[in-house]
Parts: sequence; C-alpha cells; structure tokens
Amino acid sequence: MEKVIKIGLLGSGTVGSGVIKVLEMNRRQITERVGAQLQIKTVLVRNLKKPRPYLRGIHLTDRFEDILNDPEIDIIVELIGGLHPAHEYMLQALEAGKSVVTANKDVVAQCGQDLFEAAEKNRVDFAFEASVGGGIPIITPLKQCLTANRITEIMGIVNGTTNYMLTKMTECGSSYADVLKEAQEKGYAEANPSADVDGLDAARKAAILSSIAFNTRVRLDNVSVEGITKITPEDIAYAKDLDCVIKLLAVGKDSPETGVDVRVHPVLLPKSHPLASVNGVYNAIFVRGNAVGEAMFYGQGAGSLPTASAVVSDIIDVARDMVNGSFGKVRCTCYEQKKICPLSKTVSSYYIRLLVDDEPGVLGMIATTFGSAGVSLKSVIQTRQNVKDHAEIVAVTHPVEHARIQQAVRELQELPVVDEMRNLLRVENDRG
Amino acid sequence: MEKVIKIGLLGSGTVGSGVIKVLEMNRRQITERVGAQLQIKTVLVRNLKKPRPYLRGIHLTDRFEDILNDPEIDIIVELIGGLHPAHEYMLQALEAGKSVVTANKDVVAQCGQDLFEAAEKNRVDFAFEASVGGGIPIITPLKQCLTANRITEIMGIVNGTTNYMLTKMTECGSSYADVLKEAQEKGYAEANPSADVDGLDAARKAAILSSIAFNTRVRLDNVSVEGITKITPEDIAYAKDLDCVIKLLAVGKDSPETGVDVRVHPVLLPKSHPLASVNGVYNAIFVRGNAVGEAMFYGQGAGSLPTASAVVSDIIDVARDMVNGSFGKVRCTCYEQKKICPLSKTVSSYYIRLLVDDEPGVLGMIATTFGSAGVSLKSVIQTRQNVKDHAEIVAVTHPVEHARIQQAVRELQELPVVDEMRNLLRVENDRG
Repeated sequence: MEKVIKIGLLGSGTVGSGVIKVLEMNRRQITERVGAQLQIKTVLVRNLKKPRPYLRGIHLTDRFEDILNDPEIDIIVELIGGLHPAHEYMLQALEAGKSVVTANKDVVAQCGQDLFEAAEKNRVDFAFEASVGGGIPIITPLKQCLTANRITEIMGIVNGTTNYMLTKMTECGSSYADVLKEAQEKGYAEANPSADVDGLDAARKAAILSSIAFNTRVRLDNVSVEGITKITPEDIAYAKDLDCVIKLLAVGKDSPETGVDVRVHPVLLPKSHPLASVNGVYNAIFVRGNAVGEAMFYGQGAGSLPTASAVVSDIIDVARDMVNGSFGKVRCTCYEQKKICPLSKTVSSYYIRLLVDDEPGVLGMIATTFGSAGVSLKSVIQTRQNVKDHAEIVAVTHPVEHARIQQAVRELQELPVVDEMRNLLRVENDRG
Repeated sequence: MEKVIKIGLLGSGTVGSGVIKVLEMNRRQITERVGAQLQIKTVLVRNLKKPRPYLRGIHLTDRFEDILNDPEIDIIVELIGGLHPAHEYMLQALEAGKSVVTANKDVVAQCGQDLFEAAEKNRVDFAFEASVGGGIPIITPLKQCLTANRITEIMGIVNGTTNYMLTKMTECGSSYADVLKEAQEKGYAEANPSADVDGLDAARKAAILSSIAFNTRVRLDNVSVEGITKITPEDIAYAKDLDCVIKLLAVGKDSPETGVDVRVHPVLLPKSHPLASVNGVYNAIFVRGNAVGEAMFYGQGAGSLPTASAVVSDIIDVARDMVNGSFGKVRCTCYEQKKICPLSKTVSSYYIRLLVDDEPGVLGMIATTFGSAGVSLKSVIQTRQNVKDHAEIVAVTHPVEHARIQQAVRELQELPVVDEMRNLLRVENDRG
C-alpha cells in the first residue's frame, strides 16, 4: 500500500483554499512526484461554525495543539500570516520534529533565524518559497541554482498592488488617488493600503531576498523604505521623456567597500531594463551574479493559486525528503556578518523636479548650486510650465552619495528662485 | 581538517575554462555552501602539448581511464559536447559510482533515459542544468519548484545566435544574409550556421524541456523543426504593423485531447508577451502551469561564465548530497507515456504573405479561397507594393489545424492571381 504523508494546515483563507484545490486537482501527478500520497488531515480555523464547503471531509479544529500533538501529522503548513501566533506555532512544530512550510514574509523577515536553527537542530525542513514573489521560484534558485555566484545585486518588483497602480498611472496618465481607488475597488489594495503603498510589504521581501543572496542577516530595520504616495502623473510623464518607467523596487546591493545596501523606493528605470516591462500585478526578481551575469524570474506575485503553487511545491519537496529519509540539505545560508551600508553612504543617480521662477538665469543658478554641492548633472530639462510665471526644471544627476544629494536639495530650497521641491527620485542606470 | 571533494573535468574549452575560473574566484563561499572544498584534480584534454595557462597546477591527461579509475574522484563533469564519446564516458562514470554533471544537450536530448537509469541504479547524481538556457535556472525550477503544477505550455527563446540575428533584423531592418555575416564576424554564429539557424540546437532543448515539463519522453524526432532562414525584412516590418515581433521559439504544449505537441519555428509574438522583449543573445523560458499561471526565467543562454554558473551550481548541489550522505531525490520524471500530437493536427494561428496581381477583386478571391478551405481570417491587409502591377497581401488567420492551412495554401497557389507564396509563419496569440 502506498505511503500517506499527513499534513496539518494552519489557516484556511485565500492561500489555504488554494493549497487544498491544487492538492486535489493535481493529485495523481503529485503522488507520482513524491512517491507517496499527500493528505491534509486537519485544518486549524478560527471559527468552527463558518461554512467552508471546500473543506468537506477534512477534520477541522480551533486548537493548534490538536495538530501539534498529532503524531500522524509530519508536515505543518502555516498560512495564518502575521507575526503572532504564527511564529510561536512554527517554532513549536519544528521543536516537535515536524517540518514546516510557510508563506509568511513577516515571520521569515523578522524571526527567520530562530526557525532555521530550530529546523537544523531537529533535523527537519523549513521551507518558505511562497514568502517572496508568490508563485515565482526565487528562494530555491537563489539557494540552489545560483550558488556558484557571488550575487552583487538583486532588484525586485515584489508588490503587485503598487505595480498595478504604477502601471495604470503609466498607461492612463491617472492620478495616484484615482488608481488607488480603482485598485481598492478591484480588491488589489486594502482599505488601509499603507503596507503596500508605503513599501512595508516590499521591505520584508527585500530583507528576505538580501539575506539569502548576500549570505548575511539583513533585518527589517536595515531596509530604508520609501513608498509611492508622492508619485504624480507629471513624474510619470517626465520619466517617459527620459525613456524610463517608474517602478517600486526592492533593491539589494553588496559591495566589499560599502557593505550591504538594502532599500525599497520608487525608481526611474530605463525602458530597456528587463524589469521595465513587468506590468500589472506581475512580479519579477532580477539578479546579478559574478558568473551568471543577469538573470530574472517572472510571474504572479500573489493570488490564491499562484501562491499555492509555491506552497505545494515546497510541501512536495519536504515530502520527498521524508520518502528518501533525508532532510533539507540547504540550511540557513547566513554564514557571513557583513556590515550594512548606512543610507547616507548609498550611491544612486537622482531625478529632481523643481518648480522655479520663469526668468532668465535660473537654470544657471540651479546648475551652479548642484555643482558647488559636488553633484554632477547628467541632464537638465526645463519644460511644462503649468503655473503662470513659473517653470519646471527636471535634473538627472550622475551617481552620487545620498548625503550629498540631500545637501544639494537643502541648498536648492534656499534659493529665492526655487519655489517648490516637487520630487526627488532615484534613477537606476548602472547596467553593465 | 576540511573534507575535499575531487572532480574530474572532461574538456577544457570555453565552458571548462569558465568552470575553473568560477571555482577559483568564488572559492571561499563555495566551500561555505558545500561544507567541503571542491578541487579539480584531473582534466581530460585532447592534446597534452597545447599551452593552457589557466590549467596550471592541475593534472592533465588524454586518457579518460585515468579519471574513471581514480578512486579519489567522486564527480565527473562532462564538457566535451557531442554525442560520442561523451555519452559513453558519462555512462561509464555513473556505472563506476561517480556522480555526473553535464552541459551536453545532445546526449541529454537523445540518450537521457540511459543516464537517468544508470544514476538511479548506482545511487549517484546526474545533473544537467546547463544543457538548456546556459546560466538560466530552468531544469531545477521545473523539477522542483513548479512540481505542484500540471504544466500545459512551455515556450522558450533558447538559441542566442538566432535571437541576436532576429533582434538585429528588427532593430536595423537588415537582411538575413547581412545579420548572419555580422553574427559570424562577432563569433556568435559558426562558419556553418545550420545548427542554429535551422533550429536544430533549439530542437534539442525543446525535447529536454518538454520531457521534464510534461513528464513524458519527448525524443528529438518528435520535434517538428523550422529555422529562420526564410525570414525577410518585409516579414519583420509586417510583424511590427501587427504589433508583433518575430522570434524563434521552442514550443511545447500538452493537452489531454491532442497529446504533446513540440516544435521549433519562428513565430509572430505580440509585443505585450513577456518573451517579446527578450533581445540579443539573451534567452528566456516561459512556462504556463495550472496553479502558477505564467512564469518566466530569463538570462544568458550561452557563454563561458554563465554556462559555468549552471555547471558549478550543479557541482555544488551534487557535493552537498555527498556531504549529507544522500543522493538526488529528484529522479527521472518521465513516468508517463503521452502520445505525441502529429504536426498535421497541431493548431496555430498563421500569418500568410502573398504576392498577387494588383487588380480589383483579388482580395475577395483570396478571402473566399480561405473560407472554402475552412480557414477563418482574423485580418487581411493589402499594402507595400514593391513590384509594378503587383500587391502584397498579408492575412492572419484564427487558430486552425496545420493540415488545413497547408490545404488552403495549396489552393491559393493555384489561383491565377497569386504570383508567389512569400511566407507562412505561425502567430502566437493564445495568452489566456
């Protein structure tokens, strides 16, 4: 008789129901691939009375202990989300000798180390492919397929909500407020959209990706974060003039000189960059390694079935280990302790948009101020006057330290001819 | 003292020298990742006398037996290429209980089964990530990260030479002959370019990818192949008018009704398709699964260091198995025997370009002929007369069986007003 591997599922929301559906619709081939049957034995739910037709035939409980203490259950799949009690549940599961699969970016970003150590100690697996990029394989490629490389850079569009919004703004010229409203109506954005639009969701993923790519622990508070709320249709239009699109990127760079630099912010990205054509709710992660050169991984970063694809593939992987009597050969990869580059020392090119008095000599004064602050300009355009007697100046700098551009901005704002500092955005242009 | 895992390298050409370089430049972190040192002990070369400064300090031999019979060597890396003697060497290595890593698409496409079975029987690893897509992780993602899915479609730009040529033709409007000459001068194309331009290289990769994606053995002679030699600047220009680009694709589709359909041919691809912006020598593989939806893997499909990235990552993976006392848990995945869809039954949309007499009523006659052959048209344009008293007609059909479009083409060619059948190309338009 075929071996059956039993699973306890924590949470039965969007991803949980996707996991149940995928295990059901691809049952035959999953069994072939594992060499054993996978069966969800028990599901932890908050409210036992809520009707859930897709859970028919599966044992429900509202007590985690029923799953933790069930000796038949070998794999616990955590899909509750949030830090607590998800973190505690996973730790207890690992300590009890059960392998854990999760989609929880909060816990992995903030308490990953605990869990890696517990898995190692108890010789079980801890898998979290779904915590970044939804269905896109990126954790395994980094931990397994690109291990020959020293990764120097990782850049990702890892938040579908903001990418959908920026794509809409680019395609339709709409305002931030309008696209947010539309995204909320379509269910892509929450009523309180802060986690997405302020870049906090992307920051968690940036910490996870950078930790793995650079083999050093990057904590959430090491990530400098800026959201998309200040992006206007004018910025989008200027970006177009500069042959760029604006994207919210999670960026990680590792250099022996300055350390590990991890940030989330909007960026003007040249249209020729592979990430520039990643639109709508799609996600992609771009990686630069010293052997592979450029590589990119693209797909749906959220949603019930795509996320379930990653969760179930992890379950299959863990189950194969069980069938083979082995356990995860790829453990915590943070064997280095690299220094974190402070924000002030990070280097980027910048786009600066200023509202100025429309009179002769202004452009010269602005350029001189940049120059005396030690900021070298790549281009300056003066166009699109939308207020009487005023002009807009858009300058793009060569790469410069963050501290220095901040100083230049302060000096510009003190000029009497500068009426308003309208935006300051990074420009990504260092493709080799 | 740290364990040392010793490697025998077969071949010291472009990829072989890349492997040596990558192992050297990333030595410290590779040791960390494996938990042991990797050392190339012996290299098999054809001519012992040829100077090879990058092999200083490594033992050279021109006899495979020196490596095969060396009990210290645990991993054999095959980078000779071609069917023979590479196939025999790998089989002997596996039978001798050594794990094998290869970049050899010919052997994997044509004799893969032998090698999987030998690896399984001898409880060693057989890894071949570099055989498709150079540095792009695609074999492991298919075998491990997307296992929750039933894969229904795989489409790849898997030949850098032809993608470079088509990109140049698109960007510069150059002729096929001119770009071929330029590609040969740059070293991107061989003096005899047939393997690339006739689609044979891509066909091997199509067979490998489809075998893994659809869990059934797809042999090279199951792949119908068409190259890019008949693509003209006119086709490229018409494609642009249709908001498409022309790409050489390796296509595999799996449908329960018609079976597995694997082909290599140029195709008009909508500019909005993720593969459409993969330009120059870059490769990408697009996958559709019933859970993940669309996913794509992008990177450099050839070259010394990118290919070495895949080879060395495979070596690290195999070495980790040794350190853990396990061996590859993911074996041959061809556990099904699906029927192959005959070319005549394959379904595509088509682009047809005809030179016709420039007189009233011709368009009607053409459209009527399509209709009576049972081919439904999506659009017809009549433009760009480049010969006196002649016009060109470009028709795009709705999806139709290959046999039926062939019949329609025969009937069109019999019409007195049709002077020349200029091209017949597939159009990819079924993105869900």
